[in-house]
Amino acid sequence: MTRRQLHLNAFLMTTGHHEASWRLPESDPHAHVDLAHYVRLARIAERGTFDSLFLADGPQLWSSVAQRPAGALEPITLLTALATATEHIGLIATASTSYNSPYNLARKFATLDHISGGRAGWNIVTTAGAEAARNFGLDAEPAHAERYARAAEFLDVALKLWDSWEDDAIVADKAAGVWGDDAKIHPPRHQGRYFSVEGALNVPRTPQGYPLLVQAGSSEDGKRFAARYAEAVFTAQQTIEDARAFYADLKSRAVAAGRDADHIKVLPGIVPVIGSTEAEARANERVLEDHIVHTHGVDRLERLLHLDPGTLDLDGPLPADLPPESAIEGAKSRYTLIVELARRERLTVRQLIGRLGGGRGHLTFAGTPEQVADTIGLWFGSGAADGFNIMPAVLPSGLDAFVEHVVPILRARGLLRTEYGSSRRTLRERYGLPRPANQHVLAPALV
Amino acid sequence: MTRRQLHLNAFLMTTGHHEASWRLPESDPHAHVDLAHYVRLARIAERGTFDSLFLADGPQLWSSVAQRPAGALEPITLLTALATATEHIGLIATASTSYNSPYNLARKFATLDHISGGRAGWNIVTTAGAEAARNFGLDAEPAHAERYARAAEFLDVALKLWDSWEDDAIVADKAAGVWGDDAKIHPPRHQGRYFSVEGALNVPRTPQGYPLLVQAGSSEDGKRFAARYAEAVFTAQQTIEDARAFYADLKSRAVAAGRDADHIKVLPGIVPVIGSTEAEARANERVLEDHIVHTHGVDRLERLLHLDPGTLDLDGPLPADLPPESAIEGAKSRYTLIVELARRERLTVRQLIGRLGGGRGHLTFAGTPEQVADTIGLWFGSGAADGFNIMPAVLPSGLDAFVEHVVPILRARGLLRTEYGSSRRTLRERYGLPRPANQHVLAPALV
Repeated sequence: MTRRQLHLNAFLMTTGHHEASWRLPESDPHAHVDLAHYVRLARIAERGTFDSLFLADGPQLWSSVAQRPAGALEPITLLTALATATEHIGLIATASTSYNSPYNLARKFATLDHISGGRAGWNIVTTAGAEAARNFGLDAEPAHAERYARAAEFLDVALKLWDSWEDDAIVADKAAGVWGDDAKIHPPRHQGRYFSVEGALNVPRTPQGYPLLVQAGSSEDGKRFAARYAEAVFTAQQTIEDARAFYADLKSRAVAAGRDADHIKVLPGIVPVIGSTEAEARANERVLEDHIVHTHGVDRLERLLHLDPGTLDLDGPLPADLPPESAIEGAKSRYTLIVELARRERLTVRQLIGRLGGGRGHLTFAGTPEQVADTIGLWFGSGAADGFNIMPAVLPSGLDAFVEHVVPILRARGLLRTEYGSSRRTLRERYGLPRPANQHVLAPALV
Repeated sequence: MTRRQLHLNAFLMTTGHHEASWRLPESDPHAHVDLAHYVRLARIAERGTFDSLFLADGPQLWSSVAQRPAGALEPITLLTALATATEHIGLIATASTSYNSPYNLARKFATLDHISGGRAGWNIVTTAGAEAARNFGLDAEPAHAERYARAAEFLDVALKLWDSWEDDAIVADKAAGVWGDDAKIHPPRHQGRYFSVEGALNVPRTPQGYPLLVQAGSSEDGKRFAARYAEAVFTAQQTIEDARAFYADLKSRAVAAGRDADHIKVLPGIVPVIGSTEAEARANERVLEDHIVHTHGVDRLERLLHLDPGTLDLDGPLPADLPPESAIEGAKSRYTLIVELARRERLTVRQLIGRLGGGRGHLTFAGTPEQVADTIGLWFGSGAADGFNIMPAVLPSGLDAFVEHVVPILRARGLLRTEYGSSRRTLRERYGLPRPANQHVLAPALV
């Protein structure tokens, strides 16, 4: 049996995950709309034999563009361009179940899966925030539970659409003049609470059957959803204890839902800041912190914590009377993580902004390549992770440093593939997951 | 002043526009989901210095896949992949105003325009048919006038979104820590009959400002819409007289709407079937006709004419008591064109199916390269066309034949560019159109 190996995902974000990264001399402030920038990043990640790369997304522009690069190319479109510039790496796009229709979105992912030869993944989000809602005819954000109920129905419809062609529906009998077999087309005829979708998808079943299903919400609703649908989960965890608890909880929920624990991969985020010595790594981290504009950080933290503008004191602690997570309609689990981090480490608002500047709640780790590899190996080896969501503070240099210096150590330790090889081609194969059967085709044993 | 030259658009459709093209030995019946097939076509068109290529679309699968290749990759996604495989040619995707939301669609086209360096075009359709409606939560197709009212509001919102960033909104002042100028961001704050869209697009203004706006409806509603918004119009015309009348009508409508007649380009469709002699061309055409399955043709014609199944007699004429165009909620002008063609030429249903098999109502022309070039030159030179929508009966061979044999004649006659050159880079520049001003920026003379 093959030894268990890490799954690595490169989480790409313009000039890097650190909010001040765009201010460094090396950074291009127009990178967010530059295809060549993303092609460069994708090729670095492919050099590092990553399983996949990933783009976050939300269908809105934040209220101010002053603070840092705002806006982004639409992920499915951008990843299609990257599909043609790469050969092996998986391509995971974020898309919202609240602000798309199942027919259009299922079709776009099917198209990306065909074009990329089976490398498409969908990070399923329900999209928090009133800004997005107001771009789609709503006055306010739908309630958290409502968004997840819609998401579950969306997934059911999308799965019906992706299975609406059997794999062998195309007959292509030129002599008889018969192209397809209508008996192998299965229109969803779905009538639900949120959606009515009558007809079959107008794209044949794809190399993967459907895109790898990814999820990143860690609220109670989010975990329930992940246990039912997700094949990979991105999560923010600050301590190995929390990560172990999350990992065990999610795997057991998946088993309770009748799934194989091995068919849901858990990838915590890590923001590595690498130096050839620990002191150099810390100095690199300080350069980034020195570029933070603290008034911007206060704005953003107040938004994240749902506080009125002007509530926070830069050199004081967080207020003692913050509302409980249950009162938050937005990103619930991130809220709790940030509040707990500030209280556990007794951080001032200024210190908290410094800690969040790099990873918005994900684990930031400054150290040598060996130290980064040690941490990854420790979490991977002790039930806290199946792999990692690598979130470089600065791009492309931080990804390049990871691939140049950390990847060789992981390979030498047998934790990471040394090449893609030819036997596994699809994204789902890279993650060690089976190709899903079509819901309309009985398993051979049952026929 | 430069001599007026043809604008050529390559209308790509899987194995070709002839319904039986997929049955030829040369054709790949899986071409419709094969990126390499489309890359090959795009590169042939670019060799022929075409202005653009184009994909039709509808968000539904027809009720039977037996007859010929059904379904298609989503056009914006596919064209994004083609953007990376080409350098010069424009990329026009069809998308529906009835079954998309303005924020998502405006963003996708903005993304394609950035990725392609200003080569995006949008063929605006309102999407006829109940099949599509039932994939998006509706029981029946919205009325024709209702679809066009929604389309007009959709365009107004999309234009607001594309103009929501001024061209110089990105300041990128690293030293001061200021990335963008909030005063140059203009949220639409649109509250209309069909849409409410509050916030700015999350993509900066694009190389072209917005995609080239293309339209192909020739009904009364369609022409009114085109006169107001369209920069290029695809149209089906069977005779040069009809084409001249359409051309003159559309230009005068545009002028009446306060536009420059030269800023709306009219491109009739032509299905060239080429042979080295006229007899060879006719023989090529007959091979295609011999592959038509007539029962399929009857089904399709009954659908096009909104007749009950079993109404038509293969060897009789069309029924005398067909309803008037005003009673048709679908593709109105195509309906009238087909009925008039059958009556003018006294065609049986079988003969009509043969005539429609290649171009679904577009002008089918079998001849030598010189004859094809003569017809193109005649229409172009006598007020019937600004260029042509080239619709090869078989792909890729028909496009290749056009580029190899007709294009050199057009170039020798000074009717077509011999190379793309470096001064015009965007699709709008190729069509001889100005880059649109941002609606939020006063013209210099007015400041």
